[in-house]
Amino acid sequence: MPRIVVLRWGHRPQRDTRLTTHVALTARALGASGIILSDIEDRKIRETVNKLTRQWGGRFFFEMGTPWKEAVRNWRSTGGIVVHLTAYGENIEGSNVLEDIRGSMRDVMVIVGSQKVPREFFSEDISDFNVAIGNQPHSECASLAIFLYCLSEGKTLARSYQGAKIRIIPQKRGKKVVENKRFLSDDG
Amino acid sequence: MPRIVVLRWGHRPQRDTRLTTHVALTARALGASGIILSDIEDRKIRETVNKLTRQWGGRFFFEMGTPWKEAVRNWRSTGGIVVHLTAYGENIEGSNVLEDIRGSMRDVMVIVGSQKVPREFFSEDISDFNVAIGNQPHSECASLAIFLYCLSEGKTLARSYQGAKIRIIPQKRGKKVVENKRFLSDDG
Repeated sequence: MPRIVVLRWGHRPQRDTRLTTHVALTARALGASGIILSDIEDRKIRETVNKLTRQWGGRFFFEMGTPWKEAVRNWRSTGGIVVHLTAYGENIEGSNVLEDIRGSMRDVMVIVGSQKVPREFFSEDISDFNVAIGNQPHSECASLAIFLYCLSEGKTLARSYQGAKIRIIPQKRGKKVVENKRFLSDDG
Repeated sequence: MPRIVVLRWGHRPQRDTRLTTHVALTARALGASGIILSDIEDRKIRETVNKLTRQWGGRFFFEMGTPWKEAVRNWRSTGGIVVHLTAYGENIEGSNVLEDIRGSMRDVMVIVGSQKVPREFFSEDISDFNVAIGNQPHSECASLAIFLYCLSEGKTLARSYQGAKIRIIPQKRGKKVVENKRFLSDDG
Protein backbone atom coordinates (compact mmCIF):
# COMPACT_ATOMS: atom_id res chain seq x y z
CA MET A 1 0.00 0.00 0.00
CA PRO A 2 1.20 3.53 -0.73
CA ARG A 3 1.66 5.97 2.12
CA ILE A 4 -1.32 8.31 2.33
CA VAL A 5 -1.49 11.75 3.92
CA VAL A 6 -4.56 13.97 4.02
CA LEU A 7 -4.32 17.74 3.72
CA ARG A 8 -7.38 19.52 5.13
CA TRP A 9 -7.69 22.98 3.63
CA GLY A 10 -10.00 25.82 4.67
CA HIS A 11 -10.80 24.75 8.22
CA ARG A 12 -12.65 27.40 10.19
CA PRO A 13 -12.40 26.97 13.97
CA GLN A 14 -15.75 26.62 15.76
CA ARG A 15 -17.85 26.29 12.59
CA ASP A 16 -15.91 23.29 11.25
CA THR A 17 -14.76 21.68 14.49
CA ARG A 18 -16.89 18.58 14.30
CA LEU A 19 -16.60 18.13 10.55
CA THR A 20 -12.81 18.43 10.56
CA THR A 21 -12.65 16.01 13.49
CA HIS A 22 -14.70 13.55 11.46
CA VAL A 23 -12.41 14.07 8.46
CA ALA A 24 -9.37 13.33 10.63
CA LEU A 25 -10.89 10.21 12.21
CA THR A 26 -12.01 8.99 8.78
CA ALA A 27 -8.46 9.46 7.50
CA ARG A 28 -7.14 7.39 10.40
CA ALA A 29 -9.73 4.62 10.14
CA LEU A 30 -9.27 4.29 6.40
CA GLY A 31 -5.52 3.92 6.44
CA ALA A 32 -3.93 7.36 6.16
CA SER A 33 -0.66 7.95 8.03
CA GLY A 34 -1.73 11.37 9.21
CA ILE A 35 -3.45 14.64 8.51
CA ILE A 36 -2.17 18.16 7.94
CA LEU A 37 -4.54 20.93 8.97
CA SER A 38 -3.10 23.59 6.71
CA ASP A 39 -2.72 27.32 7.36
CA ILE A 40 -4.38 27.30 10.76
CA GLU A 41 -4.07 25.76 14.20
CA ASP A 42 -6.80 24.05 16.18
CA ARG A 43 -5.44 22.52 19.35
CA LYS A 44 -8.82 21.21 20.44
CA ILE A 45 -9.14 18.97 17.42
CA ARG A 46 -5.54 17.84 17.70
CA GLU A 47 -6.15 16.85 21.32
CA THR A 48 -9.30 14.91 20.42
CA VAL A 49 -7.58 13.04 17.60
CA ASN A 50 -4.36 12.30 19.49
CA LYS A 51 -6.27 11.09 22.52
CA LEU A 52 -8.30 8.74 20.37
CA THR A 53 -5.14 7.44 18.68
CA ARG A 54 -3.53 6.73 22.05
CA GLN A 55 -6.57 4.70 23.09
CA TRP A 56 -7.35 2.92 19.85
CA GLY A 57 -3.79 2.34 18.73
CA GLY A 58 -1.68 2.63 15.63
CA ARG A 59 0.29 5.62 14.45
CA PHE A 60 -1.40 8.71 13.13
CA PHE A 61 0.14 12.15 13.02
CA PHE A 62 -1.72 15.43 13.35
CA GLU A 63 0.19 18.40 11.94
CA MET A 64 -1.24 21.90 11.86
CA GLY A 65 -0.44 25.42 10.77
CA THR A 66 1.72 24.53 7.77
CA PRO A 67 0.95 26.75 4.76
CA TRP A 68 -0.70 24.55 2.13
CA LYS A 69 1.79 25.48 -0.59
CA GLU A 70 4.67 24.45 1.59
CA ALA A 71 3.00 21.14 2.50
CA VAL A 72 2.35 20.34 -1.16
CA ARG A 73 5.86 21.36 -2.21
CA ASN A 74 7.44 19.19 0.49
CA TRP A 75 5.27 16.23 -0.46
CA ARG A 76 6.03 16.50 -4.15
CA SER A 77 9.74 16.84 -3.48
CA THR A 78 9.68 13.33 -1.97
CA GLY A 79 8.10 11.91 -5.13
CA GLY A 80 4.51 11.71 -3.89
CA ILE A 81 1.52 12.60 -6.03
CA VAL A 82 -1.32 14.93 -5.07
CA VAL A 83 -5.00 14.07 -5.48
CA HIS A 84 -7.48 16.92 -5.12
CA LEU A 85 -10.97 15.73 -4.20
CA THR A 86 -13.55 17.94 -5.88
CA ALA A 87 -17.03 17.48 -7.31
CA TYR A 88 -15.69 19.05 -10.56
CA GLY A 89 -13.05 16.40 -11.18
CA GLU A 90 -13.03 13.07 -12.99
CA ASN A 91 -15.75 10.83 -11.59
CA ILE A 92 -14.34 7.63 -10.07
CA GLU A 93 -17.33 5.90 -11.63
CA GLY A 94 -17.04 6.05 -15.40
CA SER A 95 -13.36 7.01 -15.69
CA ASN A 96 -10.04 5.25 -15.10
CA VAL A 97 -8.78 7.78 -12.61
CA LEU A 98 -8.58 5.33 -9.70
CA GLU A 99 -6.65 2.82 -11.79
CA ASP A 100 -4.30 5.59 -12.92
CA ILE A 101 -3.63 6.61 -9.32
CA ARG A 102 -3.07 3.03 -8.19
CA GLY A 103 -0.96 2.37 -11.29
CA SER A 104 1.37 5.25 -10.42
CA MET A 105 2.58 3.21 -7.42
CA ARG A 106 3.35 6.50 -5.70
CA ASP A 107 2.52 7.82 -2.25
CA VAL A 108 -0.62 9.95 -2.22
CA MET A 109 -1.48 13.27 -0.61
CA VAL A 110 -5.24 13.82 -0.66
CA ILE A 111 -6.39 17.44 -0.55
CA VAL A 112 -9.80 17.85 1.07
CA GLY A 113 -11.13 21.37 0.77
CA SER A 114 -14.33 23.11 1.61
CA GLN A 115 -16.77 24.96 -0.64
CA LYS A 116 -14.53 27.53 -2.31
CA VAL A 117 -10.95 26.39 -2.84
CA PRO A 118 -8.16 28.36 -4.54
CA ARG A 119 -8.24 27.94 -8.32
CA GLU A 120 -4.62 26.75 -8.18
CA PHE A 121 -5.73 23.45 -6.63
CA PHE A 122 -6.96 22.41 -10.09
CA SER A 123 -3.70 23.22 -11.87
CA GLU A 124 -0.81 20.91 -12.75
CA ASP A 125 1.40 22.89 -10.41
CA ILE A 126 -0.54 21.55 -7.45
CA SER A 127 -2.62 18.48 -8.30
CA ASP A 128 -1.78 15.41 -10.32
CA PHE A 129 -5.42 14.33 -10.31
CA ASN A 130 -8.74 16.08 -9.69
CA VAL A 131 -11.06 13.36 -8.49
CA ALA A 132 -14.82 13.47 -8.00
CA ILE A 133 -16.70 11.02 -5.83
CA GLY A 134 -19.65 11.56 -8.11
CA ASN A 135 -20.37 15.01 -9.54
CA GLN A 136 -23.09 15.96 -7.07
CA PRO A 137 -22.45 18.25 -4.10
CA HIS A 138 -22.30 16.30 -0.85
CA SER A 139 -19.56 16.09 1.79
CA GLU A 140 -15.77 16.19 1.96
CA CYS A 141 -15.96 13.61 4.74
CA ALA A 142 -17.98 11.23 2.56
CA SER A 143 -15.70 11.86 -0.42
CA LEU A 144 -12.57 11.15 1.57
CA ALA A 145 -14.10 7.97 3.00
CA ILE A 146 -15.05 6.53 -0.37
CA PHE A 147 -11.79 7.57 -2.02
CA LEU A 148 -9.66 5.91 0.67
CA TYR A 149 -11.92 2.86 0.70
CA CYS A 150 -11.51 2.45 -3.05
CA LEU A 151 -7.77 3.11 -3.02
CA SER A 152 -7.19 0.25 -0.56
CA GLU A 153 -10.01 -1.84 -2.02
CA GLY A 154 -11.47 -1.98 1.47
CA LYS A 155 -8.48 -3.73 3.02
CA THR A 156 -7.68 -1.03 5.58
CA LEU A 157 -11.04 -1.58 7.30
CA ALA A 158 -9.88 -4.93 8.66
CA ARG A 159 -6.38 -4.06 9.80
CA SER A 160 -5.29 -4.17 13.43
CA TYR A 161 -3.89 -1.22 15.35
CA GLN A 162 -0.63 -1.71 17.27
CA GLY A 163 -0.67 -0.85 20.94
CA ALA A 164 -4.43 -0.42 21.18
CA LYS A 165 -5.75 -0.09 24.73
CA ILE A 166 -9.24 -0.77 23.58
CA ARG A 167 -10.72 -2.62 20.65
CA ILE A 168 -14.10 -3.80 19.44
CA ILE A 169 -14.88 -7.43 18.75
CA PRO A 170 -17.37 -7.26 15.87
CA GLN A 171 -20.71 -8.89 16.61
CA LYS A 172 -24.12 -9.40 15.06
CA ARG A 173 -25.87 -8.09 18.19
CA GLY A 174 -24.80 -5.88 21.07
CA LYS A 175 -21.43 -4.39 21.96
CA LYS A 176 -18.25 -6.23 22.81
CA VAL A 177 -15.13 -4.33 23.78
CA VAL A 178 -11.80 -5.71 24.94
CA GLU A 179 -9.43 -3.63 27.01
CA ASN A 180 -5.76 -4.39 26.89
CA LYS A 181 -4.69 -4.23 30.51
CA ARG A 182 -1.01 -4.16 29.62
CA PHE A 183 -1.30 -1.05 27.51
CA LEU A 184 -3.86 0.47 29.86
CA SER A 185 -1.47 0.21 32.78
CA ASP A 186 1.32 1.81 30.75
CA ASP A 187 -0.68 4.96 30.78
CA GLY A 188 -2.02 4.80 34.33
CA MET B 1 -31.61 -1.50 -6.96
CA PRO B 2 -33.55 -1.63 -3.69
CA ARG B 3 -35.19 1.50 -2.37
CA ILE B 4 -33.04 3.05 0.35
CA VAL B 5 -34.10 5.42 3.11
CA VAL B 6 -31.81 6.88 5.76
CA LEU B 7 -32.98 7.44 9.33
CA ARG B 8 -30.84 10.00 11.15
CA TRP B 9 -31.17 9.54 14.90
CA GLY B 10 -29.95 11.82 17.70
CA HIS B 11 -29.61 15.07 15.79
CA ARG B 12 -28.96 18.05 18.03
CA PRO B 13 -29.83 21.40 16.45
CA GLN B 14 -26.94 23.87 16.25
CA ARG B 15 -24.23 21.41 17.30
CA ASP B 16 -25.02 18.90 14.52
CA THR B 17 -26.32 21.23 11.82
CA ARG B 18 -23.46 20.85 9.41
CA LEU B 19 -22.86 17.17 10.06
CA THR B 20 -26.52 16.25 9.60
CA THR B 21 -26.62 18.35 6.43
CA HIS B 22 -23.62 16.39 5.14
CA VAL B 23 -25.32 13.11 6.09
CA ALA B 24 -28.42 14.15 4.13
CA LEU B 25 -26.47 15.26 1.05
CA THR B 26 -24.42 12.07 1.16
CA ALA B 27 -27.63 10.04 1.29
CA ARG B 28 -28.92 11.90 -1.77
CA ALA B 29 -25.67 11.66 -3.77
CA LEU B 30 -25.27 7.96 -3.05
CA GLY B 31 -28.72 6.92 -4.16
CA ALA B 32 -31.07 7.09 -1.17
CA SER B 33 -34.70 8.11 -1.84
CA GLY B 34 -34.82 10.32 1.20
CA ILE B 35 -33.93 10.92 4.82
CA ILE B 36 -35.96 10.91 8.01
CA LEU B 37 -34.66 13.18 10.76
CA SER B 38 -36.27 11.34 13.64
CA ASP B 39 -37.75 12.75 16.85
CA ILE B 40 -36.86 16.36 16.13
CA GLU B 41 -37.42 19.12 13.60
CA ASP B 42 -34.79 21.27 11.96
CA ARG B 43 -36.29 23.50 9.30
CA LYS B 44 -32.96 25.08 8.43
CA ILE B 45 -31.48 21.78 7.31
CA ARG B 46 -34.64 20.83 5.46
CA GLU B 47 -34.52 24.13 3.57
CA THR B 48 -30.85 23.65 2.64
CA VAL B 49 -31.42 20.11 1.42
CA ASN B 50 -34.64 20.82 -0.49
CA LYS B 51 -33.11 23.86 -2.16
CA LEU B 52 -30.14 21.83 -3.30
CA THR B 53 -32.44 19.10 -4.62
CA ARG B 54 -34.45 21.64 -6.62
CA GLN B 55 -31.25 22.91 -8.23
CA TRP B 56 -29.38 19.66 -8.76
CA GLY B 57 -32.39 17.53 -9.67
CA GLY B 58 -33.84 14.15 -8.87
CA ARG B 59 -36.27 13.26 -6.13
CA PHE B 60 -35.21 13.23 -2.51
CA PHE B 61 -37.56 13.58 0.42
CA PHE B 62 -36.73 15.17 3.76
CA GLU B 63 -39.04 14.07 6.57
CA MET B 64 -38.61 15.24 10.15
CA GLY B 65 -40.06 14.88 13.59
CA THR B 66 -41.29 11.29 13.23
CA PRO B 67 -40.56 9.23 16.37
CA TRP B 68 -37.89 6.68 15.44
CA LYS B 69 -39.96 3.70 16.64
CA GLU B 70 -42.82 4.73 14.44
CA ALA B 71 -40.55 5.21 11.41
CA VAL B 72 -38.99 1.78 11.90
CA ARG B 73 -42.38 0.12 12.47
CA ASN B 74 -43.82 1.68 9.30
CA TRP B 75 -40.80 0.63 7.27
CA ARG B 76 -40.86 -2.94 8.49
CA SER B 77 -44.59 -3.21 7.86
CA THR B 78 -43.91 -2.66 4.14
CA GLY B 79 -41.40 -5.53 4.08
CA GLY B 80 -38.21 -3.47 4.22
CA ILE B 81 -35.19 -4.45 6.30
CA VAL B 82 -33.32 -2.24 8.75
CA VAL B 83 -29.54 -1.84 8.81
CA HIS B 84 -28.04 -0.16 11.85
CA LEU B 85 -24.60 1.32 11.15
CA THR B 86 -22.42 0.98 14.23
CA ALA B 87 -18.72 0.45 14.93
CA TYR B 88 -19.77 -2.54 17.10
CA GLY B 89 -21.44 -4.46 14.30
CA GLU B 90 -20.22 -6.97 11.72
CA ASN B 91 -17.34 -5.50 9.75
CA ILE B 92 -18.11 -5.24 6.03
CA GLU B 93 -14.53 -6.34 5.49
CA GLY B 94 -14.10 -9.89 6.69
CA SER B 95 -17.76 -10.89 6.94
CA ASN B 96 -20.55 -11.65 4.47
CA VAL B 97 -22.90 -9.03 5.84
CA LEU B 98 -23.02 -6.97 2.63
CA GLU B 99 -23.76 -10.06 0.54
CA ASP B 100 -26.48 -11.05 3.00
CA ILE B 101 -28.10 -7.61 2.73
CA ARG B 102 -27.90 -7.59 -1.07
CA GLY B 103 -29.11 -11.18 -1.16
CA SER B 104 -32.24 -10.30 0.80
CA MET B 105 -33.44 -8.32 -2.25
CA ARG B 106 -35.38 -6.11 0.16
CA ASP B 107 -35.63 -2.36 0.51
CA VAL B 108 -33.24 -0.97 3.11
CA MET B 109 -33.63 1.56 5.91
CA VAL B 110 -30.20 2.66 7.16
CA ILE B 111 -30.10 3.94 10.74
CA VAL B 112 -27.32 6.45 11.32
CA GLY B 113 -26.93 7.38 14.94
CA SER B 114 -24.53 9.43 16.95
CA GLN B 115 -22.28 8.43 19.83
CA LYS B 116 -24.74 6.93 22.29
CA VAL B 117 -27.71 5.20 20.68
CA PRO B 118 -30.53 3.35 22.48
CA ARG B 119 -29.59 -0.25 23.22
CA GLU B 120 -32.73 -1.37 21.38
CA PHE B 121 -31.11 -0.44 18.03
CA PHE B 122 -28.99 -3.60 18.36
CA SER B 123 -31.94 -5.93 19.01
CA GLU B 124 -33.86 -8.07 16.54
CA ASP B 125 -36.95 -6.00 17.25
CA ILE B 126 -35.35 -3.05 15.49
CA SER B 127 -32.40 -4.03 13.30
CA ASP B 128 -31.97 -6.89 10.88
CA PHE B 129 -28.26 -6.18 10.59
CA ASN B 130 -25.72 -4.29 12.69
CA VAL B 131 -23.05 -3.23 10.25
CA ALA B 132 -19.62 -1.77 10.96
CA ILE B 133 -17.63 0.16 8.38
CA GLY B 134 -14.54 -1.04 10.16
CA ASN B 135 -14.49 -1.35 13.94
CA GLN B 136 -12.67 1.91 14.64
CA PRO B 137 -14.46 5.07 15.75
CA HIS B 138 -14.73 7.58 12.92
CA SER B 139 -17.78 9.27 11.38
CA GLU B 140 -21.41 8.46 10.68
CA CYS B 141 -21.10 10.47 7.48
CA ALA B 142 -18.13 8.39 6.32
CA SER B 143 -19.86 5.15 7.34
CA LEU B 144 -23.03 6.01 5.47
CA ALA B 145 -21.02 6.98 2.37
CA ILE B 146 -19.07 3.73 2.23
CA PHE B 147 -22.10 1.59 3.05
CA LEU B 148 -24.21 3.12 0.27
CA TYR B 149 -21.27 3.00 -2.13
CA CYS B 150 -20.81 -0.71 -1.47
CA LEU B 151 -24.51 -1.50 -1.60
CA SER B 152 -24.79 -0.07 -5.13
CA GLU B 153 -21.28 -1.19 -6.08
CA GLY B 154 -20.56 2.42 -6.97
CA LYS B 155 -23.23 2.65 -9.66
CA THR B 156 -25.22 5.48 -8.06
CA LEU B 157 -22.24 7.84 -8.43
CA ALA B 158 -22.71 7.98 -12.20
CA ARG B 159 -26.48 8.33 -12.41
CA SER B 160 -28.20 11.40 -13.85
CA TYR B 161 -30.69 13.54 -11.94
CA GLN B 162 -34.00 14.33 -13.62
CA GLY B 163 -34.93 17.98 -13.94
CA ALA B 164 -31.54 19.32 -12.85
CA LYS B 165 -31.10 23.05 -13.35
CA ILE B 166 -27.38 22.74 -12.94
CA ARG B 167 -24.92 19.94 -13.50
CA ILE B 168 -21.19 19.43 -13.55
CA ILE B 169 -19.34 18.10 -16.58
CA PRO B 170 -16.47 16.12 -15.06
CA GLN B 171 -13.03 17.30 -16.14
CA LYS B 172 -9.37 16.62 -15.46
CA ARG B 173 -8.70 20.33 -14.84
CA GLY B 174 -10.86 23.28 -13.86
CA LYS B 175 -14.61 23.58 -13.41
CA LYS B 176 -17.29 23.08 -16.03
CA VAL B 177 -20.93 23.61 -15.15
CA VAL B 178 -23.94 23.47 -17.45
CA GLU B 179 -27.15 25.28 -16.61
CA ASN B 180 -30.39 24.00 -18.00
CA LYS B 181 -32.17 27.14 -19.15
CA ARG B 182 -35.51 25.37 -19.53
CA PHE B 183 -35.60 24.23 -15.94
CA LEU B 184 -34.05 27.47 -14.73
CA SER B 185 -36.84 29.51 -16.28
CA ASP B 186 -39.50 27.30 -14.69
CA ASP B 187 -38.39 28.65 -11.37
CA GLY B 188 -37.76 32.24 -12.40
